[in-house]
Amino acid sequence: MTDAPEKTAVAIVEVGPRDGFQGIGPFIPTPTKIDMLRRLAAAGLKRIEIGSFVSASAVPQLRDTPELLAACAGIPGLIPQVLVPSERRGKDAVQAGAPWLAFVLSVTEAHNRNNVRRHPLESVEEYQRLLALIPADRSVRLNIATAFDCPFTGRVPEAETIALLDRLIQMRADVEVCLCDTTGRADPDHVESLFATCIARFADAVAWGFHAHDTYGLGLANAHAAYRQKVRVFDASFGGLGGCPFAPGATGNVATEDVVWMFERMGVATGIDLDALIPVARDGASLPGGLPGGRVRDALTAQPERELQDPI
Amino acid sequence: MTDAPEKTAVAIVEVGPRDGFQGIGPFIPTPTKIDMLRRLAAAGLKRIEIGSFVSASAVPQLRDTPELLAACAGIPGLIPQVLVPSERRGKDAVQAGAPWLAFVLSVTEAHNRNNVRRHPLESVEEYQRLLALIPADRSVRLNIATAFDCPFTGRVPEAETIALLDRLIQMRADVEVCLCDTTGRADPDHVESLFATCIARFADAVAWGFHAHDTYGLGLANAHAAYRQKVRVFDASFGGLGGCPFAPGATGNVATEDVVWMFERMGVATGIDLDALIPVARDGASLPGGLPGGRVRDALTAQPERELQDPI
Repeated sequence: MTDAPEKTAVAIVEVGPRDGFQGIGPFIPTPTKIDMLRRLAAAGLKRIEIGSFVSASAVPQLRDTPELLAACAGIPGLIPQVLVPSERRGKDAVQAGAPWLAFVLSVTEAHNRNNVRRHPLESVEEYQRLLALIPADRSVRLNIATAFDCPFTGRVPEAETIALLDRLIQMRADVEVCLCDTTGRADPDHVESLFATCIARFADAVAWGFHAHDTYGLGLANAHAAYRQKVRVFDASFGGLGGCPFAPGATGNVATEDVVWMFERMGVATGIDLDALIPVARDGASLPGGLPGGRVRDALTAQPERELQDPI
Repeated sequence: MTDAPEKTAVAIVEVGPRDGFQGIGPFIPTPTKIDMLRRLAAAGLKRIEIGSFVSASAVPQLRDTPELLAACAGIPGLIPQVLVPSERRGKDAVQAGAPWLAFVLSVTEAHNRNNVRRHPLESVEEYQRLLALIPADRSVRLNIATAFDCPFTGRVPEAETIALLDRLIQMRADVEVCLCDTTGRADPDHVESLFATCIARFADAVAWGFHAHDTYGLGLANAHAAYRQKVRVFDASFGGLGGCPFAPGATGNVATEDVVWMFERMGVATGIDLDALIPVARDGASLPGGLPGGRVRDALTAQPERELQDPI
C-alpha cells in the first residue's frame, strides 16, 4: 500500500488569461477574452486570474484588465483574481472591486528588480502598506516568485524563501501563499521538501498553493509532489499557454487540462468538466502569437485509426 | 522534511531504437542507426534496446536487428537488449548472441492477442519454454504490457497483473520485471500502489523496472512515483521518440533527456552526460516520420534573448 494522503478535492486557479496571455504580442480582442472567461467558468474554473494591474506600457496585452473585471460580474460563478505588484496598483485593484488580490514579489533580488524594479524588502513594505488598504471582504494571495529557482542566480536556498515568508506571514496570516516555480527547474523532491518545511513552520496559519511551470516537463510531477504535502490549490493555464521569457521557444505554465486529467485519474475531484475545457483549451492554444503546452489535448483529440503490432 | 527514499543511483534503459523507431515508416538506414547507438552509448546509455526479433513484415523498420546486434560488439561499453515475443524468436535472439532478452506479454487478453496473437496464458507457456533455452550467461527481462491500463479495456485491476506475475516469477526469480504503462494513462498513485504491492509480494526475488509513456504528460510524474517505491530501472526513449499507435498524433515514450534531467536535478546519479545526449536526442527527434516528445531539449536549446516584465 502507498502512504498517499487522503484524496481530498483540489482547487485549480486558472491563470491563463494573465500568465498565458501576457506574453502574446498581438492584442487579443476584449470580447474574445470575455468569451473565453465565460467558457472557462462554464467548465468549472470558478477562480480565474483575469489580468494584472500593471503598467499598460510594460504589459500592453493586459491593458483591458479593468474592463474584464467589470465584465466578470455578468459571468455566473466566476470569481476574478488580479495580480498586483505594488501598493499603488493594489489600491487601484481594490477600487475596481477585485475580490481576489494576488500580490507578487520574488525571493531573489535579481528577479524582483527585473520584475518589479524593487528590492524584495521594498516589495515587503509595499505589501504591508497595501494590506492596510484592503477591505475585510477581499481575499489575499501572496505569489512568491523564484521560491525554488531563479533565472539569474539558480537554485534558491530554502532558508531564503523561509526568511521572506517569515516577514510576510507575520503581517497577516489569513492569506493564501502560492510558491511559484518561476523557471520550471524545481524537481519533485525540492517541491516536497520546501512545502514540508513551510507547512510545518507556519502551521495552519495560511493556505498553500503551488504554481507549476512545465518548461522541463516536470509540471505534473511537481504538482503531484505538492499534493503529497497536502497542498490543495494549483495554478494552471488552459492550453498550457505561457512561454518562459527567459527561454524563448520553451513552454511555460503547466496546462490546466493536464492537471485536471492527473487529479481526476487519481480519483481527486477538481470540479472541472474536462469535456467542456478541452475545446476552449484548444482555442487558447491556437491564439496567434501564443506558445501552447500540455499533452492531454492531443491525447484526447487523437483517435484510434488502426491496430498495429506494438509490443508495449 | 520529506520521507523521500535514499538517493541511490538509477539505471536508464534506452529503448528508442526499438520502441521509438518501430513506428517510423521510412526505413532508417542501418549505418544511421549504428551511429546513433554509438553516440547514445558514448553519452552513457550503456544498455540499449536495439530492436526486436519479430516478423519483418509486421515491423519492417526493425528488420536489421541482427545486423545491429552484430555491430554492437564494436561499440565500447554497449550492452544490447532485444525484444522477443515468443519461444521461436527468443531462440533466434539467443543464437544471435543477445546478452539481454526482453520477453514481452500483456496482462490483458485483448492487448496480447492484438500484439502477439496469443492468449496471455499461451505467452506464459512460450516464456516457460524459452527459459529452458536461455544460457546462464544471458540476462532476462519480462516486459509486462498493459500492467496498468489497456487501450481496449481500460484500467487493469491490480489483481490481474499480480496473477500473471505469480505464474511468471515462480518459473525464474532472477529476472528484471518491467511494468509497462502501455497507454500512458497510469497516474502516480496507481504506479506507486502497484509497485508497492508487487515489491512486497515478490520480496527481493526480482529486480523491478518501469516503462513510462508520456502521452498524457504523466511520464515523469509516474517515473518519480516508481522511484519513491525504490524502482531503480527506467525505460526511456531519446528524443521522446515513439508515438502511441492507438492515438495517432499523440506522443509516446517518456524522453530520455527528460528523465535524466529530473533525476540529476534531484541529485540522483544516472551516469548520463546530458550535454552529450542532447545533440543525438535532437537528431533522433528530427528523423523523418518520427513523432518526438519531451521538453528538456527545447528548454536547454532556448536561449535568453531579452528581459521583460514577467510577474512570476
